[in-house]
Amino acid sequence: MNRPTEPTYYGDYLDLNTLLSTQNPKSAKYGEESHDETLFIIVHQVYELWFKQILHEMHSIAAYLKAPKLEDDHLATIVARLDRIKKIQSLLLDQLTVMESMTPMDFLEFRDLLVPASGFQSVQFREVEVLMGLRTHNRKKVDREYFLGRLNQQDRERILKIEEEKSLLELIQDWLERMPFAKKGNFDFWKEYESAVKQMLDSDEAIINNNLATLSDIQKEAQLENLQATKRTFDSLLDEKLHNEQIEKGKRKLSQKGTLNALFIMLYRNEPMLHLPYLFLNSLIDIDENFTTWRYRHALMAHRLLGTKIGTGGSSGHHYLKMAAENNRVYEDLFNLSTFILPKNLLPSLPEEVKKNLHFYFESKKN
Amino acid sequence: MNRPTEPTYYGDYLDLNTLLSTQNPKSAKYGEESHDETLFIIVHQVYELWFKQILHEMHSIAAYLKAPKLEDDHLATIVARLDRIKKIQSLLLDQLTVMESMTPMDFLEFRDLLVPASGFQSVQFREVEVLMGLRTHNRKKVDREYFLGRLNQQDRERILKIEEEKSLLELIQDWLERMPFAKKGNFDFWKEYESAVKQMLDSDEAIINNNLATLSDIQKEAQLENLQATKRTFDSLLDEKLHNEQIEKGKRKLSQKGTLNALFIMLYRNEPMLHLPYLFLNSLIDIDENFTTWRYRHALMAHRLLGTKIGTGGSSGHHYLKMAAENNRVYEDLFNLSTFILPKNLLPSLPEEVKKNLHFYFESKKN
Amino acid sequence: MNRPTEPTYYGDYLDLNTLLSTQNPKSAKYGEESHDETLFIIVHQVYELWFKQILHEMHSIAAYLKAPKLEDDHLATIVARLDRIKKIQSLLLDQLTVMESMTPMDFLEFRDLLVPASGFQSVQFREVEVLMGLRTHNRKKVDREYFLGRLNQQDRERILKIEEEKSLLELIQDWLERMPFAKKGNFDFWKEYESAVKQMLDSDEAIINNNLATLSDIQKEAQLENLQATKRTFDSLLDEKLHNEQIEKGKRKLSQKGTLNALFIMLYRNEPMLHLPYLFLNSLIDIDENFTTWRYRHALMAHRLLGTKIGTGGSSGHHYLKMAAENNRVYEDLFNLSTFILPKNLLPSLPEEVKKNLHFYFESKKN
Amino acid sequence: MNRPTEPTYYGDYLDLNTLLSTQNPKSAKYGEESHDETLFIIVHQVYELWFKQILHEMHSIAAYLKAPKLEDDHLATIVARLDRIKKIQSLLLDQLTVMESMTPMDFLEFRDLLVPASGFQSVQFREVEVLMGLRTHNRKKVDREYFLGRLNQQDRERILKIEEEKSLLELIQDWLERMPFAKKGNFDFWKEYESAVKQMLDSDEAIINNNLATLSDIQKEAQLENLQATKRTFDSLLDEKLHNEQIEKGKRKLSQKGTLNALFIMLYRNEPMLHLPYLFLNSLIDIDENFTTWRYRHALMAHRLLGTKIGTGGSSGHHYLKMAAENNRVYEDLFNLSTFILPKNLLPSLPEEVKKNLHFYFESKKN
Repeated sequence: MNRPTEPTYYGDYLDLNTLLSTQNPKSAKYGEESHDETLFIIVHQVYELWFKQILHEMHSIAAYLKAPKLEDDHLATIVARLDRIKKIQSLLLDQLTVMESMTPMDFLEFRDLLVPASGFQSVQFREVEVLMGLRTHNRKKVDREYFLGRLNQQDRERILKIEEEKSLLELIQDWLERMPFAKKGNFDFWKEYESAVKQMLDSDEAIINNNLATLSDIQKEAQLENLQATKRTFDSLLDEKLHNEQIEKGKRKLSQKGTLNALFIMLYRNEPMLHLPYLFLNSLIDIDENFTTWRYRHALMAHRLLGTKIGTGGSSGHHYLKMAAENNRVYEDLFNLSTFILPKNLLPSLPEEVKKNLHFYFESKKN
Repeated sequence: MNRPTEPTYYGDYLDLNTLLSTQNPKSAKYGEESHDETLFIIVHQVYELWFKQILHEMHSIAAYLKAPKLEDDHLATIVARLDRIKKIQSLLLDQLTVMESMTPMDFLEFRDLLVPASGFQSVQFREVEVLMGLRTHNRKKVDREYFLGRLNQQDRERILKIEEEKSLLELIQDWLERMPFAKKGNFDFWKEYESAVKQMLDSDEAIINNNLATLSDIQKEAQLENLQATKRTFDSLLDEKLHNEQIEKGKRKLSQKGTLNALFIMLYRNEPMLHLPYLFLNSLIDIDENFTTWRYRHALMAHRLLGTKIGTGGSSGHHYLKMAAENNRVYEDLFNLSTFILPKNLLPSLPEEVKKNLHFYFESKKN
Repeated sequence: MNRPTEPTYYGDYLDLNTLLSTQNPKSAKYGEESHDETLFIIVHQVYELWFKQILHEMHSIAAYLKAPKLEDDHLATIVARLDRIKKIQSLLLDQLTVMESMTPMDFLEFRDLLVPASGFQSVQFREVEVLMGLRTHNRKKVDREYFLGRLNQQDRERILKIEEEKSLLELIQDWLERMPFAKKGNFDFWKEYESAVKQMLDSDEAIINNNLATLSDIQKEAQLENLQATKRTFDSLLDEKLHNEQIEKGKRKLSQKGTLNALFIMLYRNEPMLHLPYLFLNSLIDIDENFTTWRYRHALMAHRLLGTKIGTGGSSGHHYLKMAAENNRVYEDLFNLSTFILPKNLLPSLPEEVKKNLHFYFESKKN
Repeated sequence: MNRPTEPTYYGDYLDLNTLLSTQNPKSAKYGEESHDETLFIIVHQVYELWFKQILHEMHSIAAYLKAPKLEDDHLATIVARLDRIKKIQSLLLDQLTVMESMTPMDFLEFRDLLVPASGFQSVQFREVEVLMGLRTHNRKKVDREYFLGRLNQQDRERILKIEEEKSLLELIQDWLERMPFAKKGNFDFWKEYESAVKQMLDSDEAIINNNLATLSDIQKEAQLENLQATKRTFDSLLDEKLHNEQIEKGKRKLSQKGTLNALFIMLYRNEPMLHLPYLFLNSLIDIDENFTTWRYRHALMAHRLLGTKIGTGGSSGHHYLKMAAENNRVYEDLFNLSTFILPKNLLPSLPEEVKKNLHFYFESKKN
């Protein structure tokens, strides 16, 4: 590495003169400066800096996943970077409390000057969503309009370009489909799993019947109906045709093969080799959940500032945001895997041949 | 005060021998102890200890509010105790992450032994809800059934007794209705407010029209429709008959007089005398919001543990909890006041006679 | 207000093109880019944005305090803004966990390129410290050298200029000294306080003597010595000459008059008129404490990254930081007031004449 | 598993009648009940419940470590349980803010009744410390006296019994010493490491010399002295005799062999097989740090309540606690390993024979 010849000065390294010249309250131009407009600007700028960091991590993860084979040490790196994203998300959330220190009255002082700007025009956050796997054509109609319609030409093109690349969701599906554990010689894991499921659901049915005395009629009915629904859910996982119907209805996104392998990881997470894959999947669920929480809390904050008045983008901010929070999960299929977990005593034990693959070479040699 | 004659020992003072003998995992009785059942028990016991503390605070607040006149120093105490409740709620929330350290598989090991026990049988939490102002007859039908139907005789009677007393919601309404500021001699505050509202909404309409060029037809329509809705909302606040219609429909709970005085406090919160009342109302909103968040996060946790399988109480935990989280706000009327806030420049200035009442004697004498 | 004629676009309003062009990793210039250098830059830039916001709030608070009389509604504003600073500090702290997601090995990849830049060159943070009341001549010698010696000409001049203005500490002392409550006609509060103190310390002495049986000799001696020290502490507060000696020794900063009035506020915080002043003083203590915690956690993080190796500024980062964390409290005199609090039953009751001044005009008229 | 025949009721399962009967404020017996004494009791009871849970986890971890060979899936379980302890610690910390909602004046109302009880009499917390590896003979003299001297007979015996068993620190040392990676055939890892260290320190020296122009004489001297100290630190790690001297002086606790293997894990944490061991060591550092922070924050809280007045145990609580916080780290040797981390480009690459052992069998077979 060539050594730098000049000593580095903190302020120059961070380009602080430029950075700190970008806070320009509009209220100062059109009358007296509103004290809180600086806060409004800085809060949003900090958001954008963190979005840049999140994109930096996500693109690096996508690059690892695009390789034909995911190396183990890369998997450790991916998990560490997702973990970092989770920590940043925690800041995004807490930052809302800083924003909430602005009162409605303080905000109304300069709100009119911002029209029709809107947080929906954050092209970086749009890019995060698309990269995660939220395609515009997956969005509800009115949402799609907000998603792209408010961006300027340059920003819209940036999004459309990102949409042409494989999303993390697709790359993860590819990786999951490559997993080789569940079938080995005569061993068909999913057959064994299916019979364990039957055993568990029969036991659940017995529980309901045992408790009939303590339940009202409405409750009985609700629970039996619920049990039938659970059975149908299991069927729709194990039968590829039914699974694909769910995909067509837009209720699932991940292929059956990918879903089953993800479930396998969840079930045998304590096998050494599956520990990192498990952390990987779990981090994706967390990140999805964190963005959902952030959207919801953001909607609440908008309500605190404006009630049902129109937002700066001319949108009735609150209700739209609430809707957005509910519909934009990407990895819900992974989240829903908990339905398919079995108690340890019903879990099929793996044949030695498979188990060996899930332990470390060094260890297995010793035994 | 009579001095205690015996020296106090830490363990005796806290009755630790008794306290630490109450963790008795059922799995130990019916086979091998499940390691995580202790966690399950302790997490719920800690919840119950905090609920006891919350009730201790709430009952003391109710006692202050029942007095014919709320003294200022009592108001300071009330605000401090609500603040304490908020801090406890923050622990309740964070505690969920401890519970989430239990995996579905670990939970399924002992879930069957708990049937049909359910968190809905926490009589202390039920009491918190009733005391806040959530009456069973305000609950949705299925919710009401869960609310009372699962309790044993003794616990049900405890709740029915609490329901006979005035709730915090009712006591706060009484206090708000006693407020004397808004009418004074010839000054009719709400007349002036109404004309300020008109000015603001006209300005909002102008904003929409100014931006028509940048909007699609759907957006235009949505925004104009939204503006009309905002106008109707203001009407329904200022017209007592319309307000009472909202109450009958179950959409509002607080009387018009109480609501208007609460709004007055929100609008003039920086007047010294209204600072504590403002903190009071704001804390109520926060506490309501925190319980809502807790219910929602609790539902999420149940989903992580069970997916859509049935809960220990035989309930399809997740969906019910989700519904519960959405319908059990008590102070929503206060939360919605943000809709009625005006920008500072449109806020009617108070006549000297009223303003004087809102300042400190010491100060006003000096001027 | 003149309306803006141009519609506002989110990205333009926040000057995102400029903002997002200021992340320029040095590693990219001297070889392969280190993935984590972007994180290092963004974390520090976010810090600087928040420092700018903190300065914005602090300067506005100083402006209010410079007025000959502090209006009550301004006091409410000051408390709200200090509260905002506390919320920002909470982000500063949590942000360290994002930084800690970088491993030592990752950091060592580009550390050499940053030499001799150092966080001590953050001129904005220096300004925060000076504005709060930390003068360079109050700093320990080695600390002072770091404080100014590492800044470039322009930054050093900025600090020296700020040092010429009154700090918040001085402005708060002025405000405290103006408080008129404690002496009124024949009423001399501090006489009454002194005799209450005597009563309390006599009682403490009795407690120690009562417990002599349960204590070892070392413990007895330690406690009696400690009681004498407490007596001396009270003396040094109530005797102006002794108090001034403490100031000369550098152990206290606030004048006796200011200190006593601050204590009066603490003792009677539940009197309506003293509620905001109490919140004011308490926020100052919190802010001081938060910066102390942040410095300490920052030192820990540096240790995690470097151990006892030299920092980027060529400093042995960890040890210096640890020292800095311990010596830079500004409002310690306020923090230490808890020593002088009395139990409620010993608190002198205020004469009617004084009490009236501490209640609202409106209320006192009614009584 | 035998099914329970009786349906479970929430309140019975948690033994709530007993649990909620253990809050008995002393103030109620000796006059009027102090409102805040309930809080004081409940906060401490919640602490004790969490301590019980922490002990439950720690004992289970010790049991795994006592086995002659630590299975991989047990390692995953250990890491998960340490992670749970960290989450509980986070609650312990946040709980202090609830305690801090009590004012000094409120506390002084009932403080006298608690004499001479003290948190140092929490036998469960003592057990946590001993189990982690803090032996009473490692404690400073005055600390040791507090540690055991205040306990009653029964509690003292419990601690002395725990002290006879192997602590987690000792069990971890055993496990670390069993690690077989660093020497393999002709490969002597630590030789290669030593020469990499030399290279790094030479480079550090060059950095200092390059920057001499920008440094004052004091700074130059300080940095060169610091570099020499770093060299000596490396020597004392790599030379077993010097390492043992450090142990005798009480500056290190872990054997050289254990320390080196821990460092190996830290350096090659991204090797799949070392990922869980790395998480293990890192969690121990975090847990140590969290208790340190908790002790410090606890000391701060005591100061807020009492200033320098004597505590309920007759101790000058604040100063003792501060001292305790600084001296009771157990895993400092692990924390200090960051000093010995090398930049990636200087890290010796492992021979194929060793590397193979650190990858999964399944993977290595495929390549």
